Amino acid sequence: MRYELHYWPSIQGRGEFVRLALEAANADYLDIARQPDAGGAASMLQLMEGQATRRPPFAPPFLKAGEQIIGQTANILLFLGPRHDLAPADDAGRLWTHQLQLTFTDFIKEIHDTHHPIASGLYYEDQRDEAVRYTRAFLKHRLPKYLGYFEKILEMNGGRHLVGDRLTYVDLSLFQVVTGLRFAFPKAMAEAEANLPLSVALADAVAGHPRIAAYLASDRRIAFNQQGVFRHYPELDS
Amino acid sequence: MRYELHYWPSIQGRGEFVRLALEAANADYLDIARQPDAGGAASMLQLMEGQATRRPPFAPPFLKAGEQIIGQTANILLFLGPRHDLAPADDAGRLWTHQLQLTFTDFIKEIHDTHHPIASGLYYEDQRDEAVRYTRAFLKHRLPKYLGYFEKILEMNGGRHLVGDRLTYVDLSLFQVVTGLRFAFPKAMAEAEANLPLSVALADAVAGHPRIAAYLASDRRIAFNQQGVFRHYPELDS
Repeated sequence: MRYELHYWPSIQGRGEFVRLALEAANADYLDIARQPDAGGAASMLQLMEGQATRRPPFAPPFLKAGEQIIGQTANILLFLGPRHDLAPADDAGRLWTHQLQLTFTDFIKEIHDTHHPIASGLYYEDQRDEAVRYTRAFLKHRLPKYLGYFEKILEMNGGRHLVGDRLTYVDLSLFQVVTGLRFAFPKAMAEAEANLPLSVALADAVAGHPRIAAYLASDRRIAFNQQGVFRHYPELDS
Repeated sequence: MRYELHYWPSIQGRGEFVRLALEAANADYLDIARQPDAGGAASMLQLMEGQATRRPPFAPPFLKAGEQIIGQTANILLFLGPRHDLAPADDAGRLWTHQLQLTFTDFIKEIHDTHHPIASGLYYEDQRDEAVRYTRAFLKHRLPKYLGYFEKILEMNGGRHLVGDRLTYVDLSLFQVVTGLRFAFPKAMAEAEANLPLSVALADAVAGHPRIAAYLASDRRIAFNQQGVFRHYPELDS
């Protein structure tokens, strides 16, 4: 079965966590909105809002697996994990992996809000003062708290993987978050990484995973830019 | 097995979504921090931060089920649902129910941020101006979008339940969100409810469910207050 991933075609965003899992699994998938002949984002919106969709998702990304449509990034990974050997085999292990992914979900929302603390419908420029204030507290308190938590989980688990002794989708998510934060906050991250040796080593290992390395070098990987979750505004990074 | 729920003892907060499920299921549980002899919140923090916890959660609430500790509200409900007949029997139905709960998770975070748009570590009074600006956009765009989505899902499913033809944990969550929003934003909700007949009827039906009605009338139900997710500041409700 060929999966269809439905997400915005010009950003990594939340869809990237799904793309990384599909790539690591070597799964057969189409990134629909990026296919020139597949109707682009219009086809995605049609599936979300059309009357023909039995269980419409609230927002992208969502995955079409046969007739099943699955929304919410962490939920998609919960679905894909056991099917592609990116999650533990036992129920308790899967629940724990999902719990870590939901903690990434919370973190990613807080990262997003560094540039949009007031409203996602307003431009950054119209909430810049609030963004400066939000990000000051975020970099001081929240970023070290989240990254310190994942570093601790790594340490408690032997240092090489967040869960078990093999790659799971939460390792991919840690890679993506570390990489994105380096793009968004190069100064703050350079400082933070001094206390995160295991997370840095895991991010490096994921980047060197043969399938992920091939993906990152391909044009399937969209570059970081100023429309996604991770954005670089120098005035916020201090 | 007696569950242990670990959460802050003086607020409904995110823990309330778990309490409602445990109550509807008539499950055997202890709300640990509210037991005078169980160590209160200190015991919760000890489990979270102590070295003896193999899989420590990032934040409360979490549920102790035998030796297993499960964090993240939606993840706890994912665990409890099939065990207590509060989720569909089939995998696709469970994933869909969880997807709706994760959409509640997103909504609840946005509701929380109406009074804390800048930093959870600052007092409301120190971010009131930003809260007024955030909440204006929230009440105009986000609240109708989320509530309209759940109303549409109810309508597509025959009107009485969000999923299937029986009570599931997402029905309980819709009840809690509608009830909490009425407390926080009575004026805005009075207006919004005109377009949400099915959601209002479901919230009423949940409130009348014998076990939920008994719970709401008991001292196990903490009253809404100014420390939880749902807070009433008249200057925000307009």
